[in-house]
Amino acid sequence: MRENLTENLLIAQSGGPTAVINSSVCGIIVEAKQQGRVGSIYGAVNGILGVLNEDLVDLRQEDPSTISMLRNTPSAALGSCRYKLSKDDYSRLLQVFVAHNISYFICAGGNDSMDTAHRVAQLASEKKHDVRVIGVPKTVDNDLMVTDHCPGYGSVARFNAIAVRDSGLDTEAIYTADPVKIIETMGRDAGWITASTALGKEGEGSAPHLIYLPERPFVATSFLADVKSIYDRFGRVVVCVCEGLRDEQGEFVRASTKQIDTDKFGHAQLGGVGDYLVNLVSEKLKIKARCDKPGTIQRVSMMCASQVDLDEAYLVGEAAISRAVGGESDKMVTLVRKSSDPYECETGLVELEKVALRTKKVLNEFINKESNFVSEQFLEYARPLIGGPLPEYAHLERKKVERHLSARA
Amino acid sequence: MRENLTENLLIAQSGGPTAVINSSVCGIIVEAKQQGRVGSIYGAVNGILGVLNEDLVDLRQEDPSTISMLRNTPSAALGSCRYKLSKDDYSRLLQVFVAHNISYFICAGGNDSMDTAHRVAQLASEKKHDVRVIGVPKTVDNDLMVTDHCPGYGSVARFNAIAVRDSGLDTEAIYTADPVKIIETMGRDAGWITASTALGKEGEGSAPHLIYLPERPFVATSFLADVKSIYDRFGRVVVCVCEGLRDEQGEFVRASTKQIDTDKFGHAQLGGVGDYLVNLVSEKLKIKARCDKPGTIQRVSMMCASQVDLDEAYLVGEAAISRAVGGESDKMVTLVRKSSDPYECETGLVELEKVALRTKKVLNEFINKESNFVSEQFLEYARPLIGGPLPEYAHLERKKVERHLSARA
Repeated sequence: MRENLTENLLIAQSGGPTAVINSSVCGIIVEAKQQGRVGSIYGAVNGILGVLNEDLVDLRQEDPSTISMLRNTPSAALGSCRYKLSKDDYSRLLQVFVAHNISYFICAGGNDSMDTAHRVAQLASEKKHDVRVIGVPKTVDNDLMVTDHCPGYGSVARFNAIAVRDSGLDTEAIYTADPVKIIETMGRDAGWITASTALGKEGEGSAPHLIYLPERPFVATSFLADVKSIYDRFGRVVVCVCEGLRDEQGEFVRASTKQIDTDKFGHAQLGGVGDYLVNLVSEKLKIKARCDKPGTIQRVSMMCASQVDLDEAYLVGEAAISRAVGGESDKMVTLVRKSSDPYECETGLVELEKVALRTKKVLNEFINKESNFVSEQFLEYARPLIGGPLPEYAHLERKKVERHLSARA
Repeated sequence: MRENLTENLLIAQSGGPTAVINSSVCGIIVEAKQQGRVGSIYGAVNGILGVLNEDLVDLRQEDPSTISMLRNTPSAALGSCRYKLSKDDYSRLLQVFVAHNISYFICAGGNDSMDTAHRVAQLASEKKHDVRVIGVPKTVDNDLMVTDHCPGYGSVARFNAIAVRDSGLDTEAIYTADPVKIIETMGRDAGWITASTALGKEGEGSAPHLIYLPERPFVATSFLADVKSIYDRFGRVVVCVCEGLRDEQGEFVRASTKQIDTDKFGHAQLGGVGDYLVNLVSEKLKIKARCDKPGTIQRVSMMCASQVDLDEAYLVGEAAISRAVGGESDKMVTLVRKSSDPYECETGLVELEKVALRTKKVLNEFINKESNFVSEQFLEYARPLIGGPLPEYAHLERKKVERHLSARA
């Protein structure tokens, strides 16, 4: 039967890899095989670049056990890219679609990718080429519009919640030597990732103590006063800060010696805010500080991927192809939350145009009024996404032994 | 019966926290309770500082389930410190020991702590105060002499093996945008941690491609040639580099703008080599590079602690108190490898003097002749320590689809 089918499917992964984008690809492939309509299932090598270069692989020839294992394989197994298409590129895409009888194009990515997908859909429609284009949301940044949250976010949130809690226990133990720690998280334009570090906080004295998001201008004097206040109270401070932090002039906060590069979309490539704050604390408060910057490890690692996230990534992949076969196009699959407690979520659809190139910032009600931490509402929003409670640790009661000596001179 | 016992035990944790030092404390406490001889079990709050300040807690009053949970709790539950003792401090320590009838002093730490423990043992012996002092090896740096390896190392090795593998898959997927990644690991004087990143390497093209250890002087021209060569071959390069890297003049390799601080022992506090290499690659090779620096997260996180490491940490704690009760003093417990395949290890003892203040460097035969990677022998040494194989991932075969078009202009 398959040999007679000419409605071929092409899958592309785009932008920064995540722990769960392969789970989406797995969902697309498994569902496509179940749909009677889909002929060949192709993957584009390195995203849209693979389409342009006609560099396609045949995913029907992969062992089913390999496809199944994609559900727990991090990064982007087909390869990804960051590439801004020129006008000529779009017509080349259509040529490739026509040459390979592509009837379904599913692209997993962030807001740049959704723009690319939208333009492809528009051009195909203009040229009367029948290809259905569906976007699969994918971004650790969690900054896509309309969808409740983005696959990839739950896992980076779980990673950071655990990493900051553990690293906070480290500071708590060795605060007499290393009292201040700055943890720099990812987040280009929105602070969702940085905010997620609060999910590991166990009590007033535990990490993180302070959280700074790019949704609020960074004011050095307020930051220093905040750090000083926590330090005076607990003798230690763990600060989580977003790489995309900007000052009141809208400039990135960064170590002044660092070069800021730009990617193909003209987005600034960030880094250095952690080192900058380490120097600020050392110089202005004369308190020793250090910086952890887990970088790409946080976005891609399977170390503590969220099961909810892995499952939802699969689900949006599955929905993308079934909606495409059902006749939809120029849409992105969304996650629609029905309830937070118990957590229930289902898929929906939105026009690509409504998500392309737009950024969902952390909501005002998710940030405290001092602009140095998240709100309880944020925690309620984010908690279900990290896939269950964090591992439980021992906390000693530390019952004091009576002193027999006078204090040390 | 316990009320009549006056042979009290004091436990201290010292230096940087790890994922497994609490497992050692658990082993000490559980075994001490089983020994008929031990009366009170005290913990020093923040290591030797707690002893000096007579800041002790009663560990017999902790709930047994809390003690048991220490086996899977990261960081140092009693608190730790980095503190260099003065001559007066040593006599104060003895005063505290006498005031609380301390007959057993168990100190978990690295080579500085073993020096402290040794001096305490010596002074006690001079002053005819009967306290038995046993050191418990603890350091992610794996740089203690005599012992085959150090509790704490297996877990940081597993963390880095997984983190670098995952982060390497990230680079592999997005190399067209981000071709070079520098991952800066911990390691003050020895490259054991950096070397462990090789345990995640799956094949020639996979990460890490290059590893630079402080055991070999860093030569920028060789480094750049190495990076260029891998880049030309695979289009991407993942470099793992030790924070303690030094150049041919013995100076730390670092971003020139960074301040180098020193800790209480006069050891340099490092950082910045990752950023330095990012700039070097960008400027000299004109290839885009970025840096991940997991910092304290790598040393303390329970995310992927090695079960072998957790078990051995417990074992050395248990051995410490049973050896002390058996009459030993001024010694450190060691791990003695009986066999690598199947892996078998037991505990031994060594004079504290033989480990105090000394550093075990990565062995010559563990480093390749180009000084840019580890040897197979190192992998055989380290593999059993990380507690089983890494999670298995899917690898697509990527069977090419035949091209129908001419190449893109």
